[in-house]
Amino acid sequence: MAANSSFMVDRREIEFVLFEYLNIQKLFAYSYFSDHSTDSVGEMLTSAISLCNQYLGPLNKIGDRTGCVHNKDTKEVTTPKGTKEAYKQFVDNGFLTLSDPEEAGGIQAPSVIAAVFMELFSSANQAFTMYPGLTKSASHVLYHFGEEWMKKTCVPKIAAGTWTGTMCLTEPSAGSAVGDLKSTAKRDKDGSFRIKGVKQWISGGENDFAENILHLVLARIEGAPQGIEGVSLFLVPKKRFDKNSGKITGKNDLYCISLEEKMGIHGNSTCLMSFGDKDDCEGFLIGKENQGINYMFLMMNEARIGVGLQGLAQASVAFLNAEAYAKERIQGVDITVKRDATNPPRIAIVNHPDVKRMLLRQRSIVEGIRALSYTAALMHDESKHSPDKEHKKKCQGFLELLTPIMKAWATDMGFYSIVQSIQTYGGYGFTKDYPVEQLLRDSKIASIYEGTNGIQALDLVGRKMRMEEGAIFMGWLERHTDFIEKNKDHKAIGAEAALLEEYIAGLAEAAMHMGEVAKKGDRKAAIVNAYPFLMALGHTIIAGLLLEQAVVADEKLSGNVSAADKRFYANKVKTAKFFTHHVLPEAKSYLANVISNDTSCLEFEF
Amino acid sequence: MAANSSFMVDRREIEFVLFEYLNIQKLFAYSYFSDHSTDSVGEMLTSAISLCNQYLGPLNKIGDRTGCVHNKDTKEVTTPKGTKEAYKQFVDNGFLTLSDPEEAGGIQAPSVIAAVFMELFSSANQAFTMYPGLTKSASHVLYHFGEEWMKKTCVPKIAAGTWTGTMCLTEPSAGSAVGDLKSTAKRDKDGSFRIKGVKQWISGGENDFAENILHLVLARIEGAPQGIEGVSLFLVPKKRFDKNSGKITGKNDLYCISLEEKMGIHGNSTCLMSFGDKDDCEGFLIGKENQGINYMFLMMNEARIGVGLQGLAQASVAFLNAEAYAKERIQGVDITVKRDATNPPRIAIVNHPDVKRMLLRQRSIVEGIRALSYTAALMHDESKHSPDKEHKKKCQGFLELLTPIMKAWATDMGFYSIVQSIQTYGGYGFTKDYPVEQLLRDSKIASIYEGTNGIQALDLVGRKMRMEEGAIFMGWLERHTDFIEKNKDHKAIGAEAALLEEYIAGLAEAAMHMGEVAKKGDRKAAIVNAYPFLMALGHTIIAGLLLEQAVVADEKLSGNVSAADKRFYANKVKTAKFFTHHVLPEAKSYLANVISNDTSCLEFEF
Repeated sequence: MAANSSFMVDRREIEFVLFEYLNIQKLFAYSYFSDHSTDSVGEMLTSAISLCNQYLGPLNKIGDRTGCVHNKDTKEVTTPKGTKEAYKQFVDNGFLTLSDPEEAGGIQAPSVIAAVFMELFSSANQAFTMYPGLTKSASHVLYHFGEEWMKKTCVPKIAAGTWTGTMCLTEPSAGSAVGDLKSTAKRDKDGSFRIKGVKQWISGGENDFAENILHLVLARIEGAPQGIEGVSLFLVPKKRFDKNSGKITGKNDLYCISLEEKMGIHGNSTCLMSFGDKDDCEGFLIGKENQGINYMFLMMNEARIGVGLQGLAQASVAFLNAEAYAKERIQGVDITVKRDATNPPRIAIVNHPDVKRMLLRQRSIVEGIRALSYTAALMHDESKHSPDKEHKKKCQGFLELLTPIMKAWATDMGFYSIVQSIQTYGGYGFTKDYPVEQLLRDSKIASIYEGTNGIQALDLVGRKMRMEEGAIFMGWLERHTDFIEKNKDHKAIGAEAALLEEYIAGLAEAAMHMGEVAKKGDRKAAIVNAYPFLMALGHTIIAGLLLEQAVVADEKLSGNVSAADKRFYANKVKTAKFFTHHVLPEAKSYLANVISNDTSCLEFEF
Repeated sequence: MAANSSFMVDRREIEFVLFEYLNIQKLFAYSYFSDHSTDSVGEMLTSAISLCNQYLGPLNKIGDRTGCVHNKDTKEVTTPKGTKEAYKQFVDNGFLTLSDPEEAGGIQAPSVIAAVFMELFSSANQAFTMYPGLTKSASHVLYHFGEEWMKKTCVPKIAAGTWTGTMCLTEPSAGSAVGDLKSTAKRDKDGSFRIKGVKQWISGGENDFAENILHLVLARIEGAPQGIEGVSLFLVPKKRFDKNSGKITGKNDLYCISLEEKMGIHGNSTCLMSFGDKDDCEGFLIGKENQGINYMFLMMNEARIGVGLQGLAQASVAFLNAEAYAKERIQGVDITVKRDATNPPRIAIVNHPDVKRMLLRQRSIVEGIRALSYTAALMHDESKHSPDKEHKKKCQGFLELLTPIMKAWATDMGFYSIVQSIQTYGGYGFTKDYPVEQLLRDSKIASIYEGTNGIQALDLVGRKMRMEEGAIFMGWLERHTDFIEKNKDHKAIGAEAALLEEYIAGLAEAAMHMGEVAKKGDRKAAIVNAYPFLMALGHTIIAGLLLEQAVVADEKLSGNVSAADKRFYANKVKTAKFFTHHVLPEAKSYLANVISNDTSCLEFEF
């Protein structure tokens, strides 16, 4: 941890998940990833940690305290001091384009590695990481769906760190209902469009460190169908430029009206943007007309995994700080000391049973989200680059299934974990002397943006579980039932594996129940408990993954390992056991919601 | 709701709990409360709501944004603009001394009424309400345990609103472990003491609206025993005064070193206080030597109920705002509308099933905490003023049993409820344009101060449940089993009453389990799940109380009631059903923690 930085990382745990649990080494045999190796990943990890310690971490508190400032006259936004340098370092160290194809300026790193870095950067500085995060997404859209000149001119400018990008979906009256947007696009003689509208919640919508900003804007072309089917995607640059050289040629008719005043992520500019105030906002169609939402959705899935990683990142750094504090802070005596003892030794609070319980709860949630998110990211790599077609397809299905769970479970459980981090600190956790209160504020947005967690639950129940008539969902559950079958009598976690079986059965019953209610025609009753179902599924999957990790760790324990590793592996086993007995039971409560047949909230007269 | 105020109140619900459920009218027959009536309570309620709308509510946002400012040279603190006037109005309207005896300047209002007002004021402005709240507590200590001159001179000055008071327990190295304090008291020739030490987290430790501030300070007299048994309580005034006239005679040697920078409650000055920097800090012993903690504990119990009411208050106002927003905010179409429908009507988000679920969850938690807290406050009145000795004693026992549950359950579940209020708003909930983000920040401290919720759980399991060898605990459960027996076949909530029975059995089993583990000598294993046990008990008690309310409401429905009342009563029944099916099941998870025999967190090597 650098001075003035709350960044902390458990590198041993990350390496365990990558190399001992997921065995991502197998990816290096795929031709696409042939430039990578365990060693090169290790070097990148060192470099990423160094970036966090030197630049992103120290900027985090400054960014929170000073925030972004909007100049009402110039409409320009000043980002916190140090943002420009951090962005430069981020790009120069290759982290912006890491997982991009070589021809787009990247080094074709696996997505699972990119996920690790996303976690690290978000845990060091969530507000900052959103600038490169959204820029990268915009670049991907241009690369995959843009005109040739967009690929040739814009993508390299972004890769060089000179230009940044944004995603402009939301409008004041069109948030979750994107299709209700009012922004319009009018075709010009030269094939370009005139864009007009107001966009809200635009992260990084204006900044003072990029030469130009490429806004990816959803708007409706005159005469296009109503609703989501009539929405197109446009590239709308802050400054006009020559399509071939990228040379700036003048201003465009757009500006930042104001910044949102937010609870957290103050270091990121959240802009209300005006496009075409003077009817002179130039934009260029990306891909085909009326297909805008499809391009956006490709990014959205990536973004949802990214938001899940934010949930992981902030819970992880909050936990690591709380744990370090609990080991240092002296308060009270051991509970077994007799009341009349004379001046018994005061102990670090980590020794109080309730503090231990809170800490292991945090740890098990953090490691659970990490297990799920790296697994999902690996599915992404497999779905794109595995030589086995069948496997590719299967992994793609699993990735789609896991995405809403990952997003919602990670952000809600991650948030609740940070609440416990604050509680671990006691009164100090409520002050700005320690990082956890900021982490709580910064992280609250994650359950809302990129599709609220309620919408994730609808996506899971209404779409993902029905994929291939439920075969993908059932296929995933098989992974856990196979594991249970194999490990029911496991010496270390057999009892826990057996316990998991009850939850798998409960999930199957609940899924059937929802299906039956839907069949009876009551759609509202069928989906009202989509969120509890998602949570129950998340708990069960994560218990399954943590128990898989425990089996790996337990095997290692029987080998010849160092004292540090022995402790690490033994702790992994305990973490999985704790999760199964202390967190997983919540799934029972969620499942009870689903099968209760109680519809009082639908009948309630608000 | 006044302009610039987020204050909202559901008066119908409060009146239902007071007059239809708890029947507090019976108190008016007790001689101590003979000046009060349903009408007079109604008038006070109107007056309190008006104070919230006019003064406390509008000050809440200002207080958050401007905060308190410490002048490093003068050591003075400037409170947010409007605080002085609000305090004057608060006192002038009689709310400071409301429940005090007439001879102390009060009007002897029942505690349950004082609890209602505490809820209202806290929901309008938590940071402000702490000034009169702590002042009142200090006054009670002086009145009950102080010297004659303290009662005669100090109590009236406080009652008049001229002087305020604080509680100075915590020191930088003595938070939860109060007995480890280092502050000293040296006896002077005249019988007074010289106080020396540093106190932390002193709410209202310095302000700019009181002529004098009376600090109640815990310190150890030279030569007193170590630990909590050697702690005495002192009155330490900011300014010295004539004991008879109260006339200010000069300064005392104490000052505010600095203010804590906090996540919330910015309108309240949280001071680091220096006493006796120049060895000239005059203090006066309150009551007997080495009995300080006992006097503090009398206040502490009051304070814990008060903190529980804060949990209720902020969750309530967050819910009412979220509900109002959900009824106004238009977004999306009804889920049953066909995909190819042409321009279907857009609906208020309250109509989306997931929003309904979130709102009724919030409502049922809020009404559940209200049921518990008003019940506990009524027990307080009964324990003091009932003519029936047996009943008095029973109520005192129940009050003590309920206090830690009330404090911990209300503040944790209240906080989680506010998280759902933010979620209901979507992105807007994360902005400072709406009140919920402030409510979340303000409310986070409640699970920590006045004894962390972990300490409440230890109090419950280690002390309260053992009172009279468990007879009080069992006596309380009987209330629920009697109810279940009577209402198992109730037409409206019979199924829910039957469901409750499982939880009562689960609690008994879990309590027994903890007892057995303790008997085996493993104290740590016996108490490590004290918190989950407290939560399970809280869920069960609250389900019981809400079902009792549902029976009352259902009876009313069969009578001749207005359309508004019909809706109200029917909603009460639905709320109780929802809680039983959607919130109560969480108790199963908590009980599973307790009986799991899993001690992995105790074995984990942090």
